[in-house]
Amino acid sequence: MSTESINLNQKFKLFSDNWSPKVIAELNDYQIKLIKINGEFIWHSHDDTDEAFIVINGELTIKFRDGKVDIKKGEMFIVPKGVEHKPIAKNECQIMVIEPKGVVNTGDKKSDLTAKNNVWI
Amino acid sequence: MSTESINLNQKFKLFSDNWSPKVIAELNDYQIKLIKINGEFIWHSHDDTDEAFIVINGELTIKFRDGKVDIKKGEMFIVPKGVEHKPIAKNECQIMVIEPKGVVNTGDKKSDLTAKNNVWI
Repeated sequence: MSTESINLNQKFKLFSDNWSPKVIAELNDYQIKLIKINGEFIWHSHDDTDEAFIVINGELTIKFRDGKVDIKKGEMFIVPKGVEHKPIAKNECQIMVIEPKGVVNTGDKKSDLTAKNNVWI
Repeated sequence: MSTESINLNQKFKLFSDNWSPKVIAELNDYQIKLIKINGEFIWHSHDDTDEAFIVINGELTIKFRDGKVDIKKGEMFIVPKGVEHKPIAKNECQIMVIEPKGVVNTGDKKSDLTAKNNVWI
């Protein structure tokens, strides 16, 4: 068993691509991922799972078909399963996402933004 | 569906008791909990689940029978299922714990520190 802590800001220094989740830890059959985001993502939903977003640096807006939520550094939000959402960041934003292993970032949609899964840093 | 973000530091202002997990969100059958800790917890393990610790403010040490890990603000660690551990904080430390719903804070041990489960703030 490792006895090294995982430093989030150090992990963020290891990559620069946007919208491309990097796994930093597994918790049973869940993964904890870091993602850099900038600009607008696509509308999508995850039919089988809720999705936790925690903002580590910057500011994230998640649009819903009937509203939106602004999530700042030190804040979090759970997008319930099946709810269409569209993440947006006006400037680079660094987030942690927690969800079951195998969840595809673009959910029910295929897109140029569909990222490779299970990429560890 | 709520469209309010959850501010971690604001949530920490809502309680003062130590070693008493407060639920702030559910992610499928997992819960995200905030805990204030100070001093030494008891040795225990969780036979059925890993446990994620994220330090929001302060510094946490987790002792194992054969070592320890220091986890500072902005760092995290996963304690694997079945591994005996003893959390310690020299000063008040504010942490987020992620684990399946129903996990008891003292795991396989009953103690004065065994907290009521599923307390939301």
